[in-house]
Amino acid sequence: MQSNPSSTGSESPKAPFVSSFRKDDPLRIGLCGLGTVGKAVINVLQRNADLIAHRAGRPLSIINCASRRYYETDGLDPDIFSGDVLASADRDDVDVIVELIGGTTTAYELVRRAITNGKHVVTANKALLAEHGNELFDLAREHGVVIAFEAAVAGGIPIIKALREGLAGNRIDAIAGIINGTGNFILTEMQREGSDFFDVLAEAQARGYAEADPTFDVEGIDAAHKLALMASIAFGMPLAFERTYTEGISRLTPFDIQHAAQLGYIVKHLGIARRHEGGVELRVHPALVPDWHLLARIDGVLNAVVVHADAVGQTLYCGAGAGGEATASAVIADLVDLARHDGTSTPMLGTLLSKLTDQHCLDINDVESAFYIRLFARDEPGVLASVATILSNEGINIESIMQKESDEQNGLIPIVLLTHRVQESRMNKALASMADLDQIIGEPVRIRVADLLLDHRN
Amino acid sequence: MQSNPSSTGSESPKAPFVSSFRKDDPLRIGLCGLGTVGKAVINVLQRNADLIAHRAGRPLSIINCASRRYYETDGLDPDIFSGDVLASADRDDVDVIVELIGGTTTAYELVRRAITNGKHVVTANKALLAEHGNELFDLAREHGVVIAFEAAVAGGIPIIKALREGLAGNRIDAIAGIINGTGNFILTEMQREGSDFFDVLAEAQARGYAEADPTFDVEGIDAAHKLALMASIAFGMPLAFERTYTEGISRLTPFDIQHAAQLGYIVKHLGIARRHEGGVELRVHPALVPDWHLLARIDGVLNAVVVHADAVGQTLYCGAGAGGEATASAVIADLVDLARHDGTSTPMLGTLLSKLTDQHCLDINDVESAFYIRLFARDEPGVLASVATILSNEGINIESIMQKESDEQNGLIPIVLLTHRVQESRMNKALASMADLDQIIGEPVRIRVADLLLDHRN
Repeated sequence: MQSNPSSTGSESPKAPFVSSFRKDDPLRIGLCGLGTVGKAVINVLQRNADLIAHRAGRPLSIINCASRRYYETDGLDPDIFSGDVLASADRDDVDVIVELIGGTTTAYELVRRAITNGKHVVTANKALLAEHGNELFDLAREHGVVIAFEAAVAGGIPIIKALREGLAGNRIDAIAGIINGTGNFILTEMQREGSDFFDVLAEAQARGYAEADPTFDVEGIDAAHKLALMASIAFGMPLAFERTYTEGISRLTPFDIQHAAQLGYIVKHLGIARRHEGGVELRVHPALVPDWHLLARIDGVLNAVVVHADAVGQTLYCGAGAGGEATASAVIADLVDLARHDGTSTPMLGTLLSKLTDQHCLDINDVESAFYIRLFARDEPGVLASVATILSNEGINIESIMQKESDEQNGLIPIVLLTHRVQESRMNKALASMADLDQIIGEPVRIRVADLLLDHRN
Repeated sequence: MQSNPSSTGSESPKAPFVSSFRKDDPLRIGLCGLGTVGKAVINVLQRNADLIAHRAGRPLSIINCASRRYYETDGLDPDIFSGDVLASADRDDVDVIVELIGGTTTAYELVRRAITNGKHVVTANKALLAEHGNELFDLAREHGVVIAFEAAVAGGIPIIKALREGLAGNRIDAIAGIINGTGNFILTEMQREGSDFFDVLAEAQARGYAEADPTFDVEGIDAAHKLALMASIAFGMPLAFERTYTEGISRLTPFDIQHAAQLGYIVKHLGIARRHEGGVELRVHPALVPDWHLLARIDGVLNAVVVHADAVGQTLYCGAGAGGEATASAVIADLVDLARHDGTSTPMLGTLLSKLTDQHCLDINDVESAFYIRLFARDEPGVLASVATILSNEGINIESIMQKESDEQNGLIPIVLLTHRVQESRMNKALASMADLDQIIGEPVRIRVADLLLDHRN
């Protein structure tokens, strides 16, 4: 770990950060937060120090590690450790603050202070950016620094770089991703074992895949944070987390997961962003993915993102969506970018902030999908006819329908059907009418069918 | 299409290209070669002109289009067309030459001339770089310009950027990719239809997926070009195309493809680069991929690359490996990078050229693999015992063995077996001994089993 304190000059809009590509001056890092990811960043930077310096053109040097909790210093020079996180942002000898403390309180204060002091910020904090990003990115521009956040979306998969740079020639039309490893682990286990949601959740918690309070993961909030970041880059719009429709997986049953499988679909929790003439869809919800599709094969804690763009067509990116070293890989990629060149030359959200254009976000009621519908009906004649009539009255076409033998437990007949695409509001009306039928017992279940497909079968 | 001739200054090692990020000066492009990709670059740059300018921070402007053949100017200003390709490299009003003429003669001359004249080069030409890259990258460094080549590998998939930037914190250990769409189309059809190689090749030629002379594609030369580029970035070594082991797919039979499938494997044509303590493996050959693996699902003309790296683990990148607009997407990504910032700040091969370290490339005889072996034997007792004894004598363990009923056509018994990992030289000895057995008819068939796995089932 090097600690060359020589100055590379501070940054302001008038005197932009000057690339030190041909210099040997290290990029001087203040690392805040020493949890799993923070420790992994230290380890990987140490382990691959020479490799990284030869790639970045200069060393990456951790000048300061700050954490409010006590940690073993793991052989690192104890002089660089400090308990005052916010003070890191005030140090003259730091070029970039790596924010890994999480949350939206101290982290918010730290990031503001770092930016105001002319320091770049690298962060894995999707909640912070989803909630305060529009303000923070503006502040960064004002102060001539960047906020880099590859680690905030899909762990170590370089999906932010792909969207912001690799696909920069394309009009991006849609994104669909499995972007929460906890949720995907739970769905994969429910699929394999036929287990109930809450049993698998308990297992995931025991294995460290799920938090004690799993709300952010299983209710889709974490995925919505990440989706907002990707959608902003893809569509050149400000962050719109608060307008993202979010539906979790806690109400999914092994019964529906198995019946979807019989119809040739795997249930995944997807983040979907889609561009239309009149606005964008931003939604996180369970969705049926055809079992031949690559996304259907993304199991366990893996993440994957499919991007549909006008020139390149569909591309898919897959890998570890979480974990200390995988996330550290993304943090270091951002640091290498900063070491290589003036980070402000690549717009943080892919488009010049001044050119971001807000988009109308469609209400979920206006979104069109095909649907998986499951009803429980009394074993009486005429049920199917009544259901079909209701759908017909709403102009909803049936793709396939499956009436099973009566369930052993409750003597009810399960009716499972797939519809063609229809606006959600019409489906809601139809479902309300079905629920009103005397023969239908309980709430009808509805799962949207994903229609963003990388058809790799051609 | 804009043609603002204002100067942004020329480049030399002493006076590096200055980022024009905050200027409105367009990046001035000389486009050479107007085939499928060249035309697509023009179309996409026109169609997405505003979008791209808002991302790049300034417009991308084609100043000059040169082609030795006559083309419709498709509504473009005919004044910017020229028949003199090489003269493009001499124009003062061009910042970057886009080389899309292909081949290694005129393209070589053009690229040298452009570099010598202080112009950046963006190219899709893997053959040129694989054969002359070490010289050309040095020349570019000498003249303070870059050669960018995202389009040379895996079409529109931003795999070069992922390796060079997105995974810059990692020690990369291995790459395995389906990186030739023609070959993958042929294998996919052989698999699906049970057709012979030459029948499917003829179909591919009729559909425009294969050249009249398909050698580069089906013999793995094109894949070896691409693999050399990826391996150089991944392992920080000069290009080693000439030391890449290359084996084509023309000798594969539907019989073996089907028997591999019965064992749970799909036959793919892979480019594999792997790092060891003592050197690297660089090899292109048919390989058995487990049918649950994502690579096994990459069908038709799609490409996919799996990268194994120490921090991030395994990541996978998939998309269109060819086609005009997909390749144009990669060309434009490189142009946007150049428009955004000084391209020379990111090493062209991911590592500073001065820090590239040549690696010993393992002879294929020293490479370890598991093997699929298929023999045809006379229907006589003792054949299996003889085969097993030969393998045992070479210390080769059998994973599974399948003796089928005699083939209707020739009355011979097919013996199919999978071995554990063994050094290739030992397998060669065993195969030679088997071929010497009186009961074995014809040459034994051997296909390596891919052992680079993204196990997405966890």
